[in-house]
Amino acid sequence: LVSKLPDVGTSIFSVMTQLAQESGAINLAQGFPDYDPPRPLLEALARHVLTPGHQQYAPMPGLPRLREAIAAKTARLYGYTPDPATEITVTSGATEALYAVLAAVVSPGDEVLILEPAYDLYAPAVRLQGGVPVYVPLLLPDFRPDWDRVAAALTPRTRLLMLNSPHNPTGATLTPEDLDTLAGLLRNTPTLLLSDEVYEHMVFDGQPHRSVVGQPELRERAFVLSSFGKTYHATGWKVGYCVAPPALTAELRRVHQFVTFSVSTPTQHALADVLPDTDLYDSLPGFYQQKRDLFRELLAPTRFRLLPVRGGYFQVAEFRDIAPDLDDESFARRLTQETGVAVVPISAFYHNRQDHRLVRFCFAKQDATLRAAAERLQQL
Amino acid sequence: LVSKLPDVGTSIFSVMTQLAQESGAINLAQGFPDYDPPRPLLEALARHVLTPGHQQYAPMPGLPRLREAIAAKTARLYGYTPDPATEITVTSGATEALYAVLAAVVSPGDEVLILEPAYDLYAPAVRLQGGVPVYVPLLLPDFRPDWDRVAAALTPRTRLLMLNSPHNPTGATLTPEDLDTLAGLLRNTPTLLLSDEVYEHMVFDGQPHRSVVGQPELRERAFVLSSFGKTYHATGWKVGYCVAPPALTAELRRVHQFVTFSVSTPTQHALADVLPDTDLYDSLPGFYQQKRDLFRELLAPTRFRLLPVRGGYFQVAEFRDIAPDLDDESFARRLTQETGVAVVPISAFYHNRQDHRLVRFCFAKQDATLRAAAERLQQL
Ligand SMILES: CSCCC(=O)C(=O)O
Ligand SMILES: CSCCC(=O)C(=O)O
Repeated sequence: LVSKLPDVGTSIFSVMTQLAQESGAINLAQGFPDYDPPRPLLEALARHVLTPGHQQYAPMPGLPRLREAIAAKTARLYGYTPDPATEITVTSGATEALYAVLAAVVSPGDEVLILEPAYDLYAPAVRLQGGVPVYVPLLLPDFRPDWDRVAAALTPRTRLLMLNSPHNPTGATLTPEDLDTLAGLLRNTPTLLLSDEVYEHMVFDGQPHRSVVGQPELRERAFVLSSFGKTYHATGWKVGYCVAPPALTAELRRVHQFVTFSVSTPTQHALADVLPDTDLYDSLPGFYQQKRDLFRELLAPTRFRLLPVRGGYFQVAEFRDIAPDLDDESFARRLTQETGVAVVPISAFYHNRQDHRLVRFCFAKQDATLRAAAERLQQL
Repeated sequence: LVSKLPDVGTSIFSVMTQLAQESGAINLAQGFPDYDPPRPLLEALARHVLTPGHQQYAPMPGLPRLREAIAAKTARLYGYTPDPATEITVTSGATEALYAVLAAVVSPGDEVLILEPAYDLYAPAVRLQGGVPVYVPLLLPDFRPDWDRVAAALTPRTRLLMLNSPHNPTGATLTPEDLDTLAGLLRNTPTLLLSDEVYEHMVFDGQPHRSVVGQPELRERAFVLSSFGKTYHATGWKVGYCVAPPALTAELRRVHQFVTFSVSTPTQHALADVLPDTDLYDSLPGFYQQKRDLFRELLAPTRFRLLPVRGGYFQVAEFRDIAPDLDDESFARRLTQETGVAVVPISAFYHNRQDHRLVRFCFAKQDATLRAAAERLQQL
C-alpha cells in the first residue's frame, strides 16, 4: 500500500499530549480548556438526551432551530443576517467544515494560498484533494500578513486563500484595513476565501473581532468557519459551522452529506438552547484576557521572550536566552520531559519545519494550572 | 464556480423525508427507527455529559475504553480480537469511516468495484478522490453477487472492492461460501476490501452474521465498518467504527485526523458503558425479525410483490401490479403524496437510475407505525 500522505505523521497535538501524559507534564500543548462548559449547556444536553425523539438523524445541513440561532448571533455581532436555509451548515467541528470546503472546491492542480505558520491540517487536507499549497510567510515579529507577497503569490490558478484570525498559533488578528486590502486584491479574481474564525470570541484589549462576514465584498466569496467547541469549552463535542453564500453553501453541502451526513441531534438541540444567551459569549474576551494577562505576568520573571497576543488562547514565546543551542522541537520535548510543561514547537506549523526558536503555550487553563506551570517554568 | 459533483443533488433520503413531512406521510423512506435508544444508554450519556472532565477532545483514534470494548465484542462474535491500539478507529458514524477510507486509499485513476444497487454515497465519495467507480450488478431477484462478473471486472488498477452485508437496500446477506470465493478472487491481487457491515446485528432466520473479520484471508486486506447508530437506535448520535489491520488503520487515521479529528467524548464514554451488555445486541435479530414478519404479513393482502429479506431493516417490494405505467421514482412520489407512505425508489441506488419497478420500505418502526402505514397501503 503506497500512502497518499507519506510524510504526514500523527498530529503534533496528539504527539505532545501523549508525551505530556507519559511524563506527567502539565499539558499546555494541545489547545483545550481544563474547565467544563457552562452548566446550562451541560444541563440542556442531558435533558435532550432524555427527550424522546431527539436521538435520530438531524437534517443534513443542521437543525433549523440551531441555524436560526446562528443567523441571529451573526447578525448581532457582524451586521449581516445569513439565510439559515441556504447560507449556514452545521458540521462535525470546524475541522470537518474545513475539510469539506477543501474537498468541495479544490480540484487537482488548483493552488491554495496558506499564510504560514498555519494550523497543521491545512496543507495535508489541500494535498488530499490534489491541490497545491502555496506558502506565504507571515512577517515576524508580530506575524502580520505581507499583502504585497500575497498579491505576488496570486495566480489565475489560485482557487482559495486560507485566512485565520485570531490566528493559531501566533495570536495575531486582522484589522479592518487588512480585510479591505484583501478585498481589493481578490476583486476580479476567481479566488475564494476560507476564513477560519474559531477563536472569534477571544479578542483582547477592547478590539472587536473583525469577521469576514462583516466585509461585504469578501463575504461574497467566503466560507467562514466557527467552532462551538472553542466558544463553549467543549472541544470534545465536535460541533462547528460554516457561513457562506448560497452557491458556495450548496457545494459544501454536496460534500458534507458524504463526509459525515449530519451532526449529533441532541447536541445541536442543546446548543440551540444556549446560543441566544449572549452573556455566555460576550463574557469570553474578558475571561480570556484575564488568563492571558495572568500568564504573561507569571512568565515575566523568566527568560522567555513573550510575543504579543491579540486574540486566541495561545501564547508564543522565544526561548533563545534559555537554550541557545536547541531547535524548537528538541526544546519542546525537553520542556515537557524535564521541566514538566508540555508545549508545541512552532516549526510544526511550517511546511518546511522552519525554526524560529519559538514554542506555543495554551493558556485556556484554570488559573491554578497556569500558576503550577509557571512555577516549573520559573526554575529555568 | 464549477462544481466537482455537478450531477449530485440532495441525497434521496433527505428528499423523501422532506416530501414526507410536507405531505404528512408516514416516513418509511429514510432508514431510522421511530423509537428511542435503550434507557441505560441514554442515562449513561446524560451522566457523562455531567461528568467533569469528559467534555474535551477524545484521543484521535477513539477512547481507549471504547476501543477495548469493541475488541471484546468483535472477539466474541467473530472469533478474532483486533488490537485496540492499532486496529480499531472510532469515527463520526460509519459514513465518515467510509469517506475517510476512500480518501486514504483511492488515488486518481484507481478503480473501485461497486456492486449495484448500492448506498448512494459510495460512488460520489469515490469520484471525489478522482477514483473511477466500476459497477457490477447484483443478480435479481435475490440480489446475489455474480462472482464471475466480479472476477471479470477486477483489473490491476482495482484498488478497492466495496461490500455491504446485510445489504442496503435489498436485505441480501453474504454466505461463508461467498466470502471464501471472494478471498480466492482477491488472492495475489493488490485489491483492498471495504466491508460495510452496519446492519451486522440484524440477520434473520437463525443465520449468524458472516463478518469479513471472521474470514482470515479477507480480514488481512479489509476495512470493516460498523455503526452504533444502527445497533442502538441512535442514528442521530453519529458514532461508528472501523476495524482494519495495522497498516490499513494507519492510513485511515492519517486522513481521519484531518476529516474530523475525533468523536464526541461523552458519547464514546456512554457507548463504552453499555457495549459489554451483550443482551442489548443479542436481542436485535429477534426484535427486527418480528418487525419484518409483521410488516410482510400486513402487506400480504396488497398487490405488492415482496422480495426476500435476510437482514437489515428494509423491505423491497415490486409495484408493477399496482401501477404498471409508473417508473419507480414517480411511484414513490405518488405513494408519499397520495397514499401517505414515504418510500425510496430503488433506482436511486443505481448510477444509471436503472428502474426495476421496486421501492424500499424501512421497517425499523414501532408496530403501530407499521400498522398505520399498512392500512394506507391496503387501500391501493
Ligand atoms: C484537534 S487537536 C488541536 C487543538 C488545537 O486547535 C490546537 O492545539 O491548535
Ligand atoms: C444518512 S440518511 C440515510 C439512512 C440510511 O442509511 C438509509 O436510509 O439507507
